[in-house]
Amino acid sequence: MTSEQLAHLSLNEQASLTSGGTAWSTAPVRDVVRALNVSDGPHGLRRTIEDGSLFAPSAPATCYPPAVTMGSSWDPDLVRRIGAAVAREACALKVDVVLGPGVNIKRSPLCGRNFEYFSEDPHVSGVMGAAVVDGIQSLGVGACLKHFAVNNQETDRMRVSADVDERTLRELYLPAFEHIVREAKPYAVMSSYNRVNGVPASEHPWLLTQVLREEWGFDGLVMSDWGAVDDRVASLAAGLDLQMPPNGTDDQITAAVEEGRLDREAVATAAARLLQLQERVDRAPHFDGWDVDAHHELAREAARAGAVLLKNDGALLPIDPASRLKVAVIGEFARTPRYQGQGSSRVVPTRLDTAWEALRKAAGPELQLTFAPGFSLDDTTDPALAEEAVTCAADADVVLLFLGLPDASETEGQDRTHIRLPSAQVELVHLVAAACPQVAVVLANGSTVSVSEWQDHAQAVLETWLGGQAGGSAVADLVFGACNPSGKLTESIPLRLQDVPSYLHFPGQDGHTVHGEGRYVGYRHYDTLDVPVAYPFGHGLSYTTFAYRDLAVEETGVNEWTVSVTVTNTGTRHGEEVVQLYVAFDEPHPTRPRHELRGFTKLALAPGSSRQARFRLTGRDLAWYSAQRGGWRIDPGTFTVEVGSSSRDIRLHTVLYTRGDGHTEALTEQSSLGEWLDHPVGGKLLRERLDAHPGAVRLDDVDPMALAAAVQIPLVKFDGPTLGLDPDAIRALVAAVGGEAGAGAA
Amino acid sequence: MTSEQLAHLSLNEQASLTSGGTAWSTAPVRDVVRALNVSDGPHGLRRTIEDGSLFAPSAPATCYPPAVTMGSSWDPDLVRRIGAAVAREACALKVDVVLGPGVNIKRSPLCGRNFEYFSEDPHVSGVMGAAVVDGIQSLGVGACLKHFAVNNQETDRMRVSADVDERTLRELYLPAFEHIVREAKPYAVMSSYNRVNGVPASEHPWLLTQVLREEWGFDGLVMSDWGAVDDRVASLAAGLDLQMPPNGTDDQITAAVEEGRLDREAVATAAARLLQLQERVDRAPHFDGWDVDAHHELAREAARAGAVLLKNDGALLPIDPASRLKVAVIGEFARTPRYQGQGSSRVVPTRLDTAWEALRKAAGPELQLTFAPGFSLDDTTDPALAEEAVTCAADADVVLLFLGLPDASETEGQDRTHIRLPSAQVELVHLVAAACPQVAVVLANGSTVSVSEWQDHAQAVLETWLGGQAGGSAVADLVFGACNPSGKLTESIPLRLQDVPSYLHFPGQDGHTVHGEGRYVGYRHYDTLDVPVAYPFGHGLSYTTFAYRDLAVEETGVNEWTVSVTVTNTGTRHGEEVVQLYVAFDEPHPTRPRHELRGFTKLALAPGSSRQARFRLTGRDLAWYSAQRGGWRIDPGTFTVEVGSSSRDIRLHTVLYTRGDGHTEALTEQSSLGEWLDHPVGGKLLRERLDAHPGAVRLDDVDPMALAAAVQIPLVKFDGPTLGLDPDAIRALVAAVGGEAGAGAA
Repeated sequence: MTSEQLAHLSLNEQASLTSGGTAWSTAPVRDVVRALNVSDGPHGLRRTIEDGSLFAPSAPATCYPPAVTMGSSWDPDLVRRIGAAVAREACALKVDVVLGPGVNIKRSPLCGRNFEYFSEDPHVSGVMGAAVVDGIQSLGVGACLKHFAVNNQETDRMRVSADVDERTLRELYLPAFEHIVREAKPYAVMSSYNRVNGVPASEHPWLLTQVLREEWGFDGLVMSDWGAVDDRVASLAAGLDLQMPPNGTDDQITAAVEEGRLDREAVATAAARLLQLQERVDRAPHFDGWDVDAHHELAREAARAGAVLLKNDGALLPIDPASRLKVAVIGEFARTPRYQGQGSSRVVPTRLDTAWEALRKAAGPELQLTFAPGFSLDDTTDPALAEEAVTCAADADVVLLFLGLPDASETEGQDRTHIRLPSAQVELVHLVAAACPQVAVVLANGSTVSVSEWQDHAQAVLETWLGGQAGGSAVADLVFGACNPSGKLTESIPLRLQDVPSYLHFPGQDGHTVHGEGRYVGYRHYDTLDVPVAYPFGHGLSYTTFAYRDLAVEETGVNEWTVSVTVTNTGTRHGEEVVQLYVAFDEPHPTRPRHELRGFTKLALAPGSSRQARFRLTGRDLAWYSAQRGGWRIDPGTFTVEVGSSSRDIRLHTVLYTRGDGHTEALTEQSSLGEWLDHPVGGKLLRERLDAHPGAVRLDDVDPMALAAAVQIPLVKFDGPTLGLDPDAIRALVAAVGGEAGAGAA
Repeated sequence: MTSEQLAHLSLNEQASLTSGGTAWSTAPVRDVVRALNVSDGPHGLRRTIEDGSLFAPSAPATCYPPAVTMGSSWDPDLVRRIGAAVAREACALKVDVVLGPGVNIKRSPLCGRNFEYFSEDPHVSGVMGAAVVDGIQSLGVGACLKHFAVNNQETDRMRVSADVDERTLRELYLPAFEHIVREAKPYAVMSSYNRVNGVPASEHPWLLTQVLREEWGFDGLVMSDWGAVDDRVASLAAGLDLQMPPNGTDDQITAAVEEGRLDREAVATAAARLLQLQERVDRAPHFDGWDVDAHHELAREAARAGAVLLKNDGALLPIDPASRLKVAVIGEFARTPRYQGQGSSRVVPTRLDTAWEALRKAAGPELQLTFAPGFSLDDTTDPALAEEAVTCAADADVVLLFLGLPDASETEGQDRTHIRLPSAQVELVHLVAAACPQVAVVLANGSTVSVSEWQDHAQAVLETWLGGQAGGSAVADLVFGACNPSGKLTESIPLRLQDVPSYLHFPGQDGHTVHGEGRYVGYRHYDTLDVPVAYPFGHGLSYTTFAYRDLAVEETGVNEWTVSVTVTNTGTRHGEEVVQLYVAFDEPHPTRPRHELRGFTKLALAPGSSRQARFRLTGRDLAWYSAQRGGWRIDPGTFTVEVGSSSRDIRLHTVLYTRGDGHTEALTEQSSLGEWLDHPVGGKLLRERLDAHPGAVRLDDVDPMALAAAVQIPLVKFDGPTLGLDPDAIRALVAAVGGEAGAGAA
């Protein structure tokens, strides 16, 4: 079908398919290819009303909570339902491809676009991103996985080179993409603005072709981020199929083919991928609209599920709405919600709940609610507002204090420079706490804020992230206990910005952002070095409590295990627990993070009831990436399976053994004396050789210290009397173990 | 002269000069070229007795304190005198070239060869290394600066690639070499075993030719570390003149020339450099011997000057030798000194002082000295020894407790895996302190040990490092107050090994040691991040006290200042103070270390007397290396000159202003909108252009947030209606400011 269509298209027509038709649609060709509409929208659609314009206003659509909140739910099923709901809206708004999810790793809390990403951890990012893709594509609408790859900052994003060693790429920055491509098969992938190790991501053959297609089996279309392409010909040759938006440079493609600088086949391949995309999305149905109320309720469910109860001293929360308490609601955000971030993901919501209205609606007749804004949104200190808030607090039994980041501080295109709340808000915590001893802070922010300056003055802290259009109602549900918080942190909250491992490297300088911290991002750093944090990765409280028991492991194959654990709700309320599985290696000196998340599951439990969580563990979960070998390695030895409620609240653990991947490194003349001696065949051969030469050193006689230094010397260096070896003898030994003498051989 | 000699040599003969004649000498050719003798010996000569053998025993020579101790003296004049004394011994022992100094940066306290290096700081390393070279070469003997470059570990040293970004190379790992090459002009440089960014250092054209010769003007000979060369032809082509030791592969050189794979001229150049070296060292006199006593006294002076008094609560030290105190000397090291490290630098001393003998000799008749070994050198716990020591301590007024690292733990060819003292010694501190409340610990170790586990039990800690053959006498001088401690730390002592910035990267894996911490080594890390340390860089107490006043700065030229400060000895003893000058940049987010050492001077002061310290500050002291520009950059702005007694004991500071280097980055189409607007010429032109296009965006009307994101977009991306620009207009703008449109231009 596709190849038949292709044959009808001239080179010019095929070339025209490799860039868009308008800012938000692909190019049509006669009656063969229609224009496909794309729309920003990882957490809701930004479907522009005037098709042709980059900055046109968009039609209303449900604003679900952004990825930061969805991620904190640790609930792939919920996120899948959101994806499907977004797809339903896409069908109604004639959108063929949704530009999401974004699964970049939160390398630093300063990244301006963190609210669009799921986690500092690739496993969480991969599982949640795959669920979004599954959901969107369940209706035949396309998902476009982004931003591929290592787009971890906004500063200088269109030029900066993310310099990262391959092991870090393989173990931290690529696995979420890999998982989603392999498991959820998105129709499209978006290449990022930045360079990776000097090469623009949109012109990166290794990323776009070798890794993405050849290794992971991606068979969809690669499009550029908007305006990312510098060199049309280089990007097409590297594996980029579609440049967006169009800039009238398609003739560069035809000229390059005619001049022999570009393979004709490369153009046909890119065009074929667009045809294939059309074929795929043409299966999507059309709807005239959607159930706005039902989608709003889904957004509310997500906002509830993603809120993280950081702290709840004395069980201050929930507040009984049927009580006679006087509750002061303080903070402008209670009536002017901070519910999404700035930039291309900004959705015009179908409606908007405020916490203040929702609390008033949900409160019983005896509960007294008062409100004071406390601060203005322009970040200036206003003593009159603060004074009014203190008066309000002084008269209350409990204060619900709504704090958060200003809208302007979290946006595509800019990174933050600090992680503090505005000082007017920090001051307000102190003032309010002095007036009323019972303070629950409700936070609204899309990326981590420091709590160190103020949290001692609050008994409870509920991190709601960005709640989407129904976030206000969700807060009321949580605060009044209609719903039990079940979100967990997908990113560590550091005590100080300086503790963040990328602190000295971020956002780089001089055209480069060196990822010097390597694989040690987030808890991989804090837990390995025992650096204290405000709240660890995976943390989140509930109004109930959970007990873990019966950790069991069954070996189900070579390097395959099933892990199970039973969790009981030991409290008096219904609740949900995110059970986390980590794999840990006990090393005298770390060569990898102390432990890494390899599985999670969210269990809903009635009071007193128990359920079993089950996880599958495979060799890949134990493997590390050897750049030298160009592949994953599993070393034989013991490792620990940890099950817990956060990265620092491991409840049960057990030690397992793996035989490794059975691989023995091939010996060469550059292999060290120690590697030769340790090798099952080579060691025997070498010892025989030494025994046969009476003049050679007898290893048993060598001073242990000298031997310890000698074992790391490459065999080729022993060309001489010490071991009675000459170049021929060394070559013979290498040949005898089946290896090859290196080019540098004497 | 040289060229005439060269003309007499055949290609074979010239090729024979590019590797050695024996393990410790160069190859002679007829009567034209004699064999030059080389000898290990940064802190004393290891002149092998049988010339031909790699591991032959060596003749006695003075064992001066190793570089760690020399460095801690912060006294270039002293070190220069040691260099000259080593050269005098070299003349007596027929050594032409001394293989030292080693000036590698102490990236990690775990490096097994740290005792052979000066500091974690390149300024200290450069100044001290230059003094050694000056001293050695003052007699015409050659110095061989090593190990070039980035040889910061022993693990897998013959294969591992030190992966380091260029800015880190230029600002941290190369400056000591650069300073010494430019200022002291060593006759030779030794290439290191390791690779640098994948290329063997001994085959690295960028290191050995471009940087070393072309940029720094090195005109001497480059020799390999022993056994470092894998590929004779590649190394010669890269700029390595002499491979050591010989391995019978000179015919590879002649074959390569004959087959056209190697430039004939390259062989001639290498041979000429050997001839030039001979010419230079032939100026050295011959001596029949040296004044063994005088050289021993110099070693003693150095050991005194390099000891660092870390702690001295209640002025426990010095102990008055004329008093009637009972002093328990505990610790095997008091009679079996730990005075140098293992490996190629190991010297057979001309004699050896022990602290126990020296203390007995120096003690007055009333002082009671007792001794107990406390522990054995084999690292095992011996309850009987501990018990004896406790009995001895219980009966004493003061304990001098001699602790240190086992000989085996500090050696070439192996790195340490931890920084703790042996547990038997740590236990002994606790036991002894419980028996006697007055404990002074005397440490002997070549690289940093952790003090956190035990130092609260000692009132005083004297870090003597490795004292050389007269270290025992030096300890008595210091403990009894015949001499006042004046050494300072040239490396930070961390609280925990995990706090070391390279901890997660060292010693690497899989053939690579990624220098992910970049420029942030030692105090550059701790001070920038406010990480607590046990003792900061530059720290060291005295038996007297010093006051700083009258910090003054005089501008002496463009980016040139003279800084002066007056220091007064405010105590009652003669003493010496190491005055340190740091340059600091106040940045909202660090792009460079918080401050860096740029000068130091050691002032000798009688009680009550004052002297002025003077420093010269140049533009280079303010510069950072831009890899993008390929050169040093001085940004305009303010900076702080700090003067103090350690990196964390800044006594005076003043803020200065630099106009920068006057460079304005050339604008290109890849320059961002912000860079265009900020440019004196480009900004005006662009604004004119925008004004001329009524349809274009008016910058003044743009929402500040959108503008903030837009300013980082490269101008070439604005090809379109937004700014009314098309490719021609962009090219015209670039041409108008004198720049060039990039290759990727549309």
